[in-house]
Amino acid sequence: MPFECRIPVRFGDIDIAKIVYYPRFLHYCHVAMEEMFGAVVGVPYHETVMLEKVGYPTVKAEAEYLLPVGFGEVLRIVVTAEHVGTSSVRWRFEGYRVSDGKLAFRVRNTCVAVEMDAWKSRPIPPAHRKAFQTLA
Amino acid sequence: MPFECRIPVRFGDIDIAKIVYYPRFLHYCHVAMEEMFGAVVGVPYHETVMLEKVGYPTVKAEAEYLLPVGFGEVLRIVVTAEHVGTSSVRWRFEGYRVSDGKLAFRVRNTCVAVEMDAWKSRPIPPAHRKAFQTLA
Amino acid sequence: MPFECRIPVRFGDIDIAKIVYYPRFLHYCHVAMEEMFGAVVGVPYHETVMLEKVGYPTVKAEAEYLLPVGFGEVLRIVVTAEHVGTSSVRWRFEGYRVSDGKLAFRVRNTCVAVEMDAWKSRPIPPAHRKAFQTLA
Amino acid sequence: MPFECRIPVRFGDIDIAKIVYYPRFLHYCHVAMEEMFGAVVGVPYHETVMLEKVGYPTVKAEAEYLLPVGFGEVLRIVVTAEHVGTSSVRWRFEGYRVSDGKLAFRVRNTCVAVEMDAWKSRPIPPAHRKAFQTLA
Repeated sequence: MPFECRIPVRFGDIDIAKIVYYPRFLHYCHVAMEEMFGAVVGVPYHETVMLEKVGYPTVKAEAEYLLPVGFGEVLRIVVTAEHVGTSSVRWRFEGYRVSDGKLAFRVRNTCVAVEMDAWKSRPIPPAHRKAFQTLA
Repeated sequence: MPFECRIPVRFGDIDIAKIVYYPRFLHYCHVAMEEMFGAVVGVPYHETVMLEKVGYPTVKAEAEYLLPVGFGEVLRIVVTAEHVGTSSVRWRFEGYRVSDGKLAFRVRNTCVAVEMDAWKSRPIPPAHRKAFQTLA
Repeated sequence: MPFECRIPVRFGDIDIAKIVYYPRFLHYCHVAMEEMFGAVVGVPYHETVMLEKVGYPTVKAEAEYLLPVGFGEVLRIVVTAEHVGTSSVRWRFEGYRVSDGKLAFRVRNTCVAVEMDAWKSRPIPPAHRKAFQTLA
Repeated sequence: MPFECRIPVRFGDIDIAKIVYYPRFLHYCHVAMEEMFGAVVGVPYHETVMLEKVGYPTVKAEAEYLLPVGFGEVLRIVVTAEHVGTSSVRWRFEGYRVSDGKLAFRVRNTCVAVEMDAWKSRPIPPAHRKAFQTLA
C-alpha cells in the first residue's frame, strides 16, 4: 500500500511564470520521503540520518512535469517503492493537484543507503527494508 | 560546439551531508540555460521571457548524480542541445568538478517553447532555433 | 490573541553547520503569514494575492537568531500584530523549538499593502484590518 | 575601503510578484560575504569553515527593502564592516541595481565567530580581524 501525504504550495515556491519552479518538485519528493520515514519506518528521518547514521542520497532521478501547479494548490503525494534492492531503493512519487485530482508530476528516484560518516554504500537496514516493502 | 559556464557552489546550497542538496543541481542547470541565452542566443533569458514572451518550461528531466559536490567546489557546466524539435528542445547538462575535472552529474532536460501569457506551446522562434543548433 | 502554527524543519533547510540556514527563517515567517491569512482573515493568502489583488511585501525586517535550530525540530511560530497602520502592518514572529519550548528566533516584519498589478501602496482592506487587529 | 561584488538575479529567485522573494536578499548577503573572504581575507570561506573550523553565524539581521528587484537585474553589493569587536562583527551590505544605480536594499548583519565543532563563540582570528578592519 503506498504512503500518502499532502504538501501545500507556498508563495516562495512559485516562479515568474506563476507556477512552481521545477527543481522544487524534487524538494517536495524529499519532504514526502521524510514524512514517510516517520509514518512507515517508524523512525523520523532526522533520527535515521543523525542517530542511526544512515542516509539515502539520490543517485538518479527522472521527473515528468505533466501539469502546471500554482500558488495555493495542495499536492497529494503518493509514494511507492518500485524496487527494493540490497543497498538501493527506487521510489515513485506521484503528485496530484488536490483542487482537481489530476496527476501533475511523476518522479522516479533511485536512492542508495550510505553510512553517513564514511559516505559509503551499505545494505539497507532490515527494519527499513521491511517498511519499504510494504510500499510495493 | 557546446556552451560552458562555471557555477560556484555556495554555503546555502549544501545540506546536512555536507554536499549539494540534490534539487539544487536542477537549479544550476537552469542558471546555465540563463547564461547560455545571453551568450549564444544573444538575448538575455529575462528578455526572452518578459519582452519576447517566450518561455521554456521543463516537461521532463533525467538526472544522474555521479559524485558528491562539496562547499567551495566550482562546477563547470557544459550545455549541449541533443535534439531541437519544432516546439521542444532536449538539453544535456554535464557538470564537472573544477577541483579534479571529474564528471559529477549529468542532466537531460526536455523543454517546450510556450507563449508566456497563454502558457501554450508554440514553435521555437527561428532565432532561438538557429542558436540552439550551434550547440548540437 | 496571537495566531500560532507549527513548521517542521526539513532536510533541505539545513546548512553545513547542521542548523537552519538563516535566510530560511524569513521564509518560515512568510509561511506563517500565509497560514494566518487562511485561519484569521478567512481568505487564503493566494486568493488575497491573485483574486483580491492585494499583496503585503516586506519593507523592513529585523531578525534575532537566539538559538540554533536543527534538522527534525518543529518550530511553533507565534504571530502578533504589533502595529496596524493605514497601509502598513508590523508583525512580530516568535519561533519556539517544540523540543524544549525555548525561543529560537524573533522577527519583526513591516509589510505594506499594495495593489498587485500597479505595485502601489494602498489602504489595508477593512476585512484584513479587522482580522489583523485580533492579533494585537 | 568597502568590498564590492556583483550578483545576477536568477529566474528561481523571483516570486509571484515578479520580484526577488525577500528572504533571498539575505542569501545574496551571505554570497557577498563568501566572495569577500576569498578576496579580502585571502582565504575562501569554505576553507575558513572547513579547514580553519571558524564560522560566522548571524545573530542579528536588519533589512530594509527600498526598491523592487526584478529578473535579469544585476545587484552591486557593497560590503562594509561597521564594527569589529572581540568576537563579533557587524556588516553593512548595500545592494544597488546596476540597471539604474539605485539603492535597492540595505542589510545590517551581526555575526559572531564560532568554533565550528563546538559551536561556541571565540575571538575573531587576528588575520580575519586585520582584513575586516580594511572594510571599515
